[in-house]
Amino acid sequence: MRDLSVDHLLGIKQITSEDIEIIFQTADSFKQVINRPIKKVPSLRDITIANMFFENSTRTRLSFELAEKRLSADVVNFSAASSSVKKGETLVDTVNNILSMKVDMVVMRHPHPGAHLFLSRHIDAKIINAGDGTHEHPTQALLDSYSIREKLGEVAGKKVVIVGDIKHSRVALSNIFALQKQGAEVMVCGPTTLIPKYIGELGVKVEHDLRKALNWCDVANMLRIQLERQEIKYFPSIREYTMQYGLTKEILDNLDKEIVVMHPGPINRGVEITSEVADSEHSIILNQVENGVAVRMAIIYLLASKINRD
Amino acid sequence: MRDLSVDHLLGIKQITSEDIEIIFQTADSFKQVINRPIKKVPSLRDITIANMFFENSTRTRLSFELAEKRLSADVVNFSAASSSVKKGETLVDTVNNILSMKVDMVVMRHPHPGAHLFLSRHIDAKIINAGDGTHEHPTQALLDSYSIREKLGEVAGKKVVIVGDIKHSRVALSNIFALQKQGAEVMVCGPTTLIPKYIGELGVKVEHDLRKALNWCDVANMLRIQLERQEIKYFPSIREYTMQYGLTKEILDNLDKEIVVMHPGPINRGVEITSEVADSEHSIILNQVENGVAVRMAIIYLLASKINRD
Amino acid sequence: MRDLSVDHLLGIKQITSEDIEIIFQTADSFKQVINRPIKKVPSLRDITIANMFFENSTRTRLSFELAEKRLSADVVNFSAASSSVKKGETLVDTVNNILSMKVDMVVMRHPHPGAHLFLSRHIDAKIINAGDGTHEHPTQALLDSYSIREKLGEVAGKKVVIVGDIKHSRVALSNIFALQKQGAEVMVCGPTTLIPKYIGELGVKVEHDLRKALNWCDVANMLRIQLERQEIKYFPSIREYTMQYGLTKEILDNLDKEIVVMHPGPINRGVEITSEVADSEHSIILNQVENGVAVRMAIIYLLASKINRD
Repeated sequence: MRDLSVDHLLGIKQITSEDIEIIFQTADSFKQVINRPIKKVPSLRDITIANMFFENSTRTRLSFELAEKRLSADVVNFSAASSSVKKGETLVDTVNNILSMKVDMVVMRHPHPGAHLFLSRHIDAKIINAGDGTHEHPTQALLDSYSIREKLGEVAGKKVVIVGDIKHSRVALSNIFALQKQGAEVMVCGPTTLIPKYIGELGVKVEHDLRKALNWCDVANMLRIQLERQEIKYFPSIREYTMQYGLTKEILDNLDKEIVVMHPGPINRGVEITSEVADSEHSIILNQVENGVAVRMAIIYLLASKINRD
Repeated sequence: MRDLSVDHLLGIKQITSEDIEIIFQTADSFKQVINRPIKKVPSLRDITIANMFFENSTRTRLSFELAEKRLSADVVNFSAASSSVKKGETLVDTVNNILSMKVDMVVMRHPHPGAHLFLSRHIDAKIINAGDGTHEHPTQALLDSYSIREKLGEVAGKKVVIVGDIKHSRVALSNIFALQKQGAEVMVCGPTTLIPKYIGELGVKVEHDLRKALNWCDVANMLRIQLERQEIKYFPSIREYTMQYGLTKEILDNLDKEIVVMHPGPINRGVEITSEVADSEHSIILNQVENGVAVRMAIIYLLASKINRD
Repeated sequence: MRDLSVDHLLGIKQITSEDIEIIFQTADSFKQVINRPIKKVPSLRDITIANMFFENSTRTRLSFELAEKRLSADVVNFSAASSSVKKGETLVDTVNNILSMKVDMVVMRHPHPGAHLFLSRHIDAKIINAGDGTHEHPTQALLDSYSIREKLGEVAGKKVVIVGDIKHSRVALSNIFALQKQGAEVMVCGPTTLIPKYIGELGVKVEHDLRKALNWCDVANMLRIQLERQEIKYFPSIREYTMQYGLTKEILDNLDKEIVVMHPGPINRGVEITSEVADSEHSIILNQVENGVAVRMAIIYLLASKINRD
């Protein structure tokens, strides 16, 4: 097995297309493991991993925790609510202290973009970005691409549209980077107010009409409307967003082609996607979740192999 | 060992008296295990269990977690406070996502009666009800009956009175079903305001005078007054409730007979029961807690044996 | 290996200088273990430990949890936020219930001074005090002394000054007891308002001038200013506290001697200590954190050896 070109997974921007291929081949093996009766391997019995979530998370934290436990790593969990962060400690001090307890790897979600990059320069442990603000969410993008590769054979040459709130989405940005590195064509689709101004510089197509976008693509990745983030103004209201950008069975049935439907979850059924579509044979939403564990096992395993064990 | 007649433990209503006997015989073995120096068995090393608590819980969650760890299962915990539930996700989606991560069994507490039944029809994993609203709390009822059987030899033919807030208690309802299935006679005792109107249909005796109830019974199960639930109006006040229904040493001493005293915990000392009674030789309260781990191990073990491992 | 003279670690006040030496020698072995590639030993596979934190904590809880996992103990965690404590249950009942689930050891942080002593008289399990109000924090004091011994060869005969809010600090009180039992000379330094009146009875020197204190000592233990505790009035303001008692590189450079700098964490950089000092070669702050795991493994291991395993 070749090594990754990086020591940390900070973002998709920092890794190569060859890194992605190495991760996917490793994930293929682990996907076999987690479908066996005994879903564990003893590979990382000598590794301690700290999951540090400075923002709430269910699925990502659970997916990482399962990946770690299936690699037999020792796991300690940490969440912001009960942390010294509130006591005025700096991020570097918090993490340094945890590392002095001989933690080998840190999986971190943090509201500040770039927090992971900053840390990787200051501390001596492998870092995996589990989401940094509206910046990147690299493991989500990798599991998304892995699921496309599984469904359609390869990512290269495929046309993928990302629909929804591109502006506030770390999932969108990481997906754009990942898809482009693998040779896919990328389009974003949504109201003008939810498309960031810098989008032109990223080399992606922009389309405001959902039907046109869907007729162009092989895969539609429907982003979640973040109902809980009151500060985001959805244009002009969530109800009208749903009317213009919500994906229904009727729309799918009227396309010229069969497309694959993805969603990073959690789904707002009836908002960005109807139940009928989410549960249809077009949807690979639950495959994404399943693949998340295998892909995260691969990333953890590959970075752990770069830990100096002398 | 015979199999259970059910694939899930949704409520006592759905299981047979033979199921209860199978669970108790299995719990007998596990009770020996947890009293050995090495309290673990490797039985469920290939099983991953998710504890999903949509309501706060200490003792029930810990009891399940210990039961799972002593069976060597892999355990992931999940609580509503940090969950996607707040992000507008449906219960089915939350659970389906967790199952896509290859979780084999879900132990769930949920405020809505029937949430577990609904889920069992929609997802493919074994489900154990750890309390659904004011409906059922089957593992509590099973550990209660197991503790009576341990103390008095058998449940059949025994007279059991459940004292307190029958109306808002899932413990009461599950106990009534469990005791009746095993051939015990059941009485409920409390003020009219705390006895539900449908009680007559359940075939239990009703008594408003605590002393008469206690002179009738072999076992008194003293329910907890839920002081934290402000919406419940205790008749006419908690102080007067205690005067009429609180169990004291003096009352016990003036009975014509020796009775066994139970309490599901947590105890409000001095409200439904005095410290003297809780700590007396009549009380089997701590035995109930100890038996809880063994009974839960038995239920998890028996349901796990029905997982298709091909 | 000799046995400890105590069955619980309630405070430094209750243990002997020989106990401290036994703990340190045991910690020496475990420090080798946690610096090996395989950081675990199977010693406590038959022990279940409950971490009960009735106050928030990051570093202490994580340090204990890592210590327990590296001894292969089964671990269950419990925090006040999700506990029955809110339901009106007494502390004894909460703990008794957990013990009925066959927990062998309780690591507890609790806001009330003496809660641990009270419990040790009522329940049958080994208890380790992880901080009780402003009273004692014995494991912190032991890891502090262990770190001095590691850096300077021995604690006996050394001069140690504890700087800061002595009045509200459980770290200060436990350190005073530990250092005196090992034959060190102890001074406290801070504004009059933050030195408790009973300090004279403890046999320690008092100094209000930081420079004089530092010129006297071999080791300075800089306590944390508890910015989050609004009820503490720092004299006359935090800004002026920093001007009079904050440790800077300039102060260190102008001393007649080299001193060792300690801090229990979390650090308020720029308040009680500058970043330059915290990250300098004088500082053993991260060694303290690392030693915390080894010292806690030793304490847990030694108390576990006193559990009746018949």
